[in-house]
Amino acid sequence: MQLDSGGSSWPGQVTVRQLADGREIRYFDDQATPGPVHQTTDTRPLPEPPRAGEIRFDVLTGEWVTVAGHRMNRTFLPSAADCPLDPTRDPAHPTEVPDSDYDVVVFANRFPSYAPQAVGPDAAAHPDVLGPPDRPALGHCDVIVFSSDHEASIVDLPGPRLRTIVEAWVERTAALSGDPAVAEVFVFENSGEEIGVTLSHPHGQVYAYPFVPPRSAQLLERSRRYRAATGGNLLRDVLAAELAEERRVVLRGRHFSAYVPRAARWPVEVHLAPHRDVPDLAALDDAERAELGGLYQELLRRVNRFHPGIERVPYISGWHQAPTGEDRDLGRLHLQVFSLLRAPGKLKYLAGSESGMGAWVNDTTPERIAGRLREVAS
Amino acid sequence: MQLDSGGSSWPGQVTVRQLADGREIRYFDDQATPGPVHQTTDTRPLPEPPRAGEIRFDVLTGEWVTVAGHRMNRTFLPSAADCPLDPTRDPAHPTEVPDSDYDVVVFANRFPSYAPQAVGPDAAAHPDVLGPPDRPALGHCDVIVFSSDHEASIVDLPGPRLRTIVEAWVERTAALSGDPAVAEVFVFENSGEEIGVTLSHPHGQVYAYPFVPPRSAQLLERSRRYRAATGGNLLRDVLAAELAEERRVVLRGRHFSAYVPRAARWPVEVHLAPHRDVPDLAALDDAERAELGGLYQELLRRVNRFHPGIERVPYISGWHQAPTGEDRDLGRLHLQVFSLLRAPGKLKYLAGSESGMGAWVNDTTPERIAGRLREVAS
Repeated sequence: MQLDSGGSSWPGQVTVRQLADGREIRYFDDQATPGPVHQTTDTRPLPEPPRAGEIRFDVLTGEWVTVAGHRMNRTFLPSAADCPLDPTRDPAHPTEVPDSDYDVVVFANRFPSYAPQAVGPDAAAHPDVLGPPDRPALGHCDVIVFSSDHEASIVDLPGPRLRTIVEAWVERTAALSGDPAVAEVFVFENSGEEIGVTLSHPHGQVYAYPFVPPRSAQLLERSRRYRAATGGNLLRDVLAAELAEERRVVLRGRHFSAYVPRAARWPVEVHLAPHRDVPDLAALDDAERAELGGLYQELLRRVNRFHPGIERVPYISGWHQAPTGEDRDLGRLHLQVFSLLRAPGKLKYLAGSESGMGAWVNDTTPERIAGRLREVAS
Repeated sequence: MQLDSGGSSWPGQVTVRQLADGREIRYFDDQATPGPVHQTTDTRPLPEPPRAGEIRFDVLTGEWVTVAGHRMNRTFLPSAADCPLDPTRDPAHPTEVPDSDYDVVVFANRFPSYAPQAVGPDAAAHPDVLGPPDRPALGHCDVIVFSSDHEASIVDLPGPRLRTIVEAWVERTAALSGDPAVAEVFVFENSGEEIGVTLSHPHGQVYAYPFVPPRSAQLLERSRRYRAATGGNLLRDVLAAELAEERRVVLRGRHFSAYVPRAARWPVEVHLAPHRDVPDLAALDDAERAELGGLYQELLRRVNRFHPGIERVPYISGWHQAPTGEDRDLGRLHLQVFSLLRAPGKLKYLAGSESGMGAWVNDTTPERIAGRLREVAS
C-alpha cells in the first residue's frame, strides 16, 4: 500500500508493508517514485510480538507507573554488525528492516512498554487504599529510523531528509491518536550513550500512552488554572512574554521561536514553540512543516556546540502535544530539548533531591544557557 | 558547648564548635566522656561561606526550581588524600574537620544549594505569566559524616554508630525545622559513583528547603483527598494494607516495617515506615530510635546483595517527613530507598519517557523486588 502525501509540498511517499510477526513497517521516502518499491519480504522466523504488561496507580503521587517485566532482557548496545536498525544488506543476516535501503522507516518496538495487545493486569485483587484496579498497558511504542547509515547523525542529514522526518512525526501522531486506547502521543529522541541509549543508529521514538503522562497532567492543570484566572492560554502567553523579554530567546523563525524557560531545570534546556496555536504535530500546516526540520536541526547543532572542546552533547528531545481526549483544548504543541551534560565529562545526576523529592537544583542560570545557545549559532 | 542528650538511652554526646568561616560543626560521639573534647581550632584562611542563589517558579509545572550557578565548580571526586571529610591528621593539610578523630560529624556544605544568607533574587522584574517573583534560596544544606574512616561503609559500622547516626538525623531535623525560612527537612543519602556521588567518604546529607518539595506536595495532596474521602491517614492505611496483603512485605520490626510499594518505579525500591503515626524523625521515641539504625543497616545490606555477583549497589535513600508548617498534620514519616541498577553493569537511565514526561516504566515487578529482598536477609 502507498499512501497519498495529503496535498502537502512534501515530495515524498509512504509505503506500508508487514514484518514476519505481523507488525507494520512504514517506509518514508524523501522522493516519490513511480511503481512499487520496498517489496522485499521479511522471512525471519519471528515469535508473536510481545504483549504489554500493566499500569499501576501510585497512590502516593497520583501517577500511573508502567510495569513491563518482560523488557529486562532487551537489546543493549549491540555491535554495529548486529544493528537491528540497519537495512538488510545480506539476506543471511536479516535486520528489522527487510529492504536493502531506505530513507526513513517506522515500525513498532520489539520490546515495547505499551502494545496494542496486553498480557492483562495482575488478577489478584487489592484493597481500595492501594489504588484503582490495574489496567493493561495498551498503546504503542514505535521506532523512527532517520537514516539507513548507522554512522549518520541527525544534525548532518540533508534538508529534504529532515522534511521527511517531520512527515513521519506528523503521520505517527495522527495515526496513533486515532486509537481509542491512546490518551497522548509523545514523539521523542534519546541521543548519546551517556543517557543510556541502547542503539547508536540515529533514531527517534514515539510512545502512545494509555494515560495522560504526569508532566502533561501538571501542564494541563496549570493551563486550566491560568485560563480560569486570566482567560488566556498559558503556553501562548509564556511564548509572547519570552519574546517580549528577549533575554532568554535563542532563535526566531517565521513560524516557530525558541527560548530557554525562566525556570530551566537542566544544565542545557531549550523550548521551541509554534507562533500559531496548534494542539499537535498533525495540526501543523504545510509552511510550518517545511520550516520545522531546519529549525530542529539548528537547535540540535547548537546543543552539540554548547560545551567547548567536545563535538557531541547527549540530549533528550520531546514533543509535548495536546491529549487526544479530555482537555485537548488546553494543550499547545511545544518541543523541549535538554541535556544532562553540565560540563565535558560531567553529567548532572539526578540524586536525592531530584529523584527522591522532585526538587531540581540547576547549577547554571537560564540566562547563561540562552546566551551560549545564541553564541554558537550556525 | 556540649548539648544534653535529651534523656534518651543514647550514651553519646554532642559538641558544637565553629569553623574558620563561622559555620558550626557538630561532633556526635558514640560515648559521652567527661571533660572538654574536640577542641582543635580551624585555622584555615577560609572565605565567607557562599550565599545561596534563588528559587524560580516553573509556571508549566507549578514547582520551584533552584538556580545555584555558583555550584558549577564544586569538588568532584577528589583523590582520597584530599578528602575534605577526613579528619585533620596532618595540620599542614587541614580538612573540613579540624579534629584528628571523630565518630559522626555534621557541618554545612561549602557549596550549598540553600543557605541561611542568600545573594538575593534576580532584580529584573518579569511579567506575571512567567510566575511570581523569584525568592532567595534560603535554607540549609548539611553534610553528616558517618565515620572518620574514608574506606568505611555504613553497612559495616557497629550498632552503636548507627544509633549515633540516628541521633544526628533527629537533632538536625529538630534544629532546622525551627528556622522560620524552612518548609521541610529532607534527610538523605546518595551512595555510589554510578549516581554521581562526588565524595566516596561515607556520608549523608540534609536539605532544609524553603518550599515544600514537589514529591511532598503531591503526597500531601493525595493524603488530603484520601482523608476527605475516607477520614483515614493515607500512609498509615497503605502500611496496614501492605502488611495485610503480605506479598510485598520485606521485613517486620517491633516499631517499623518495610515493604515494596505496589507501584514501585525503580528496579530496586523499598519503603520503611513506623508503626506509630509520627510526623518526622524528631518525633521518634527512644525505643523507635534504638531499633531504627539496625533496620536501616539491614535494608541497605539487602540492597547491596540484590544483584548476584556484585558487592555494592548504588542507592539513594531519603526520609520523607511532614512539612514544618501548613499541612503538617497530613504528613507521616517514611523512608524510601531505591537503586537505579537494574542488573550488574546496567543502570536504569531516565530517558525521554521518565525525564521528559514523568512517565516511569519499571522493567521488573514490585513482587519480584520484594521476593529478592526477602531472600537476601541477613
